[in-house]
Amino acid sequence: MSGDDLDADLADAAAELGEPTPGLRRARAWLSRAVEPGTVDAWRFVDRVGPVEAVRLIRSGRAPARILGLVGARAQTDTSLADLRQAERCGARLLIPEDDEWPAYLLHALTLATAEEPEEPKHQADRTKALVPPLALWVRGPARVDELADRSVAIVGSRAATAYGEHVAGEFGYQLAERGWTVVSGGAYGIDAAAHRGALAADGPTIAVLACGVDRPYPAGNGALLHRIADSGLLVSEWPPGAAPHQHRFLVRNRLIAALTRGTVVVEAAARSGAMATAHRARRLGKQVMAVPGPVTSAMSVGCHELLRGTQDAEAATLVASAAHVLDVVGGIGVDLAEPAERRSDVRDGLSDLARRVLDACPVRTGVAPERLAAIAGCEVLEVLRVLPALELAELVQWTGTGWRLMPAPRARAG
Amino acid sequence: MSGDDLDADLADAAAELGEPTPGLRRARAWLSRAVEPGTVDAWRFVDRVGPVEAVRLIRSGRAPARILGLVGARAQTDTSLADLRQAERCGARLLIPEDDEWPAYLLHALTLATAEEPEEPKHQADRTKALVPPLALWVRGPARVDELADRSVAIVGSRAATAYGEHVAGEFGYQLAERGWTVVSGGAYGIDAAAHRGALAADGPTIAVLACGVDRPYPAGNGALLHRIADSGLLVSEWPPGAAPHQHRFLVRNRLIAALTRGTVVVEAAARSGAMATAHRARRLGKQVMAVPGPVTSAMSVGCHELLRGTQDAEAATLVASAAHVLDVVGGIGVDLAEPAERRSDVRDGLSDLARRVLDACPVRTGVAPERLAAIAGCEVLEVLRVLPALELAELVQWTGTGWRLMPAPRARAG
Repeated sequence: MSGDDLDADLADAAAELGEPTPGLRRARAWLSRAVEPGTVDAWRFVDRVGPVEAVRLIRSGRAPARILGLVGARAQTDTSLADLRQAERCGARLLIPEDDEWPAYLLHALTLATAEEPEEPKHQADRTKALVPPLALWVRGPARVDELADRSVAIVGSRAATAYGEHVAGEFGYQLAERGWTVVSGGAYGIDAAAHRGALAADGPTIAVLACGVDRPYPAGNGALLHRIADSGLLVSEWPPGAAPHQHRFLVRNRLIAALTRGTVVVEAAARSGAMATAHRARRLGKQVMAVPGPVTSAMSVGCHELLRGTQDAEAATLVASAAHVLDVVGGIGVDLAEPAERRSDVRDGLSDLARRVLDACPVRTGVAPERLAAIAGCEVLEVLRVLPALELAELVQWTGTGWRLMPAPRARAG
Repeated sequence: MSGDDLDADLADAAAELGEPTPGLRRARAWLSRAVEPGTVDAWRFVDRVGPVEAVRLIRSGRAPARILGLVGARAQTDTSLADLRQAERCGARLLIPEDDEWPAYLLHALTLATAEEPEEPKHQADRTKALVPPLALWVRGPARVDELADRSVAIVGSRAATAYGEHVAGEFGYQLAERGWTVVSGGAYGIDAAAHRGALAADGPTIAVLACGVDRPYPAGNGALLHRIADSGLLVSEWPPGAAPHQHRFLVRNRLIAALTRGTVVVEAAARSGAMATAHRARRLGKQVMAVPGPVTSAMSVGCHELLRGTQDAEAATLVASAAHVLDVVGGIGVDLAEPAERRSDVRDGLSDLARRVLDACPVRTGVAPERLAAIAGCEVLEVLRVLPALELAELVQWTGTGWRLMPAPRARAG
């Protein structure tokens, strides 16, 4: 970290645009405290002018009035260096979009969702529902976010879970972790804690996405559990060190749980609950939504059964009664299709119509963006994002760093 | 009943072809003991030559060898009159397809399924799986079969049910009966008994379809329950009085439970079980299939969850967590669409593509058979049979006694 002077750091960062310099990191640290996460306007402003210029414009009062209004008095304070140092003290760091480790592919669904929102502020979804990307992520733990999130499943549910729900969440967590999948949840009592514990019991990685600073895990009663997660997995939060778990922040946080994973499993949920909100966000992001059934006499399964029945505007969730069922959904196609290259034509035959169209849309050399694939394949971008992971697992397509293309043909085998 | 001489009765019946004369009834009584139910070849033979001629040909040894083989030594005995008298003694009667009361519309699905079977005997499904219509039904109780079956739902499940399953079956039975729906089940221990009891508790009609004679209800432990059903609802069986409940007969019987109802609800079922067989038969007959979820830790819910997940070759069953959900499925369209005639165009808008095509295929005056509607609408006959009840409930189509036509336009209202 460089000196105490924020402006000097910003000047350094401005000189090396797009590189994850200390100045850039400090700019995003400043923004993470100045701007409440989940604010579409603020994210768009930062996206347009860049984080360094965004900080300068806000601090000098030259940013648009709407943005200045969102930041308010925080524009005049700067605890960015203290925040970064406080993070360091507890073994945490600030991950920014400019880092290699940033889980860009998974979070891209949020970027797209934000792009689909109208520009007018009055039409924008409110902050608790907005599917806006994070400006930065405070991360505590030894693992890399991108690696852990690549094969991950969210297991969410009620805090007031029943013994049945906790049993199932623990079982799923254990079995998914045992098979190399990362269990992502919210660190809360009930289903969340049971899922994390299950993963830890299998010595598997698990991510708790928090609605407060990673240095002060909440709830306190899960302190020991959250410390164990920080030791082997990851605590992740959009809020800077010391941030308090205000109630609305949990709703804002839920979109991240959905976005960071391939799919969301709701184990137990009342009719209206945070877990249901996470499931709806996962659906809107084009991720898989799964639900565990339970007794129809249990209020804690009403939400799950609602998801399984579907509604007019939403496809029904997939019923999962075991971890194997979960893998059928999030990893099944890949595993089934991950056949030797010789059998590639058979693999193609096993694809859905949609997957085949997307595959046909992929160019041979230069990678193209999912938006472009959607235009060529004649489908929604979210649909493209839904099938790409399976095509990638089947080694049919490849991410070039800038876009998607067909996997280069395998070289002829010797002999 | 006429005299003891079967041949004389047959001669009388032959003189009045197609009328439900005592001779015709006696011919079918004879067949119901001579031919084991569920036999496709035998049903086709009777369908082709008529029941009276069928009895004559079999008794005189002039029937095809294959048919004579099926009947064997039973061809030389005749207890038809004794059977009819035994039925009468216990308040039962023999219902035959020539009777007005015969539930022709519901059972037509079986006729169609049999028509789709290949003619060659070696390709025919075995008797426990064959979707063949009954030759006659022994019926015990005060109600009319056609009236009770018109608005009916099957509730089936495991004999070794849990307290949870029995509770749900009883609740569903009670609530469906309370809303004027007939609960159909198999009279067995566990889910069946709970469903029947629930219906009786609401003073509603209920039908137990048995795999033995209606004069000797099985299982004995449910004797009191089955007698209560016979007092207010119906015991129904394809087997003549005194017939024993051989194990394979339960499987043969299951198709009747599926066929006599608009839909089948599986409350609890192990992976391979009679209830699952009933659900599969309901699906093949184009009837609605519903399942109640339960704890994923319960072996008794494994079958239900399988149905809800669906398989490659079968659509997933609908999750039902309440009697209201069941009515959404079997009666919902009708209720929703049963709007005043003025709103008929709106009603049309609410129809599925398929329903609209079938509606468009219906002629204004002369009723036509479902097969004809399927040909015009360009769909499967089973699909036609699936949407006709809803169209009828919505008062859009009408059964003329020989076929389906559009409901005549309502007369202009005075005032």
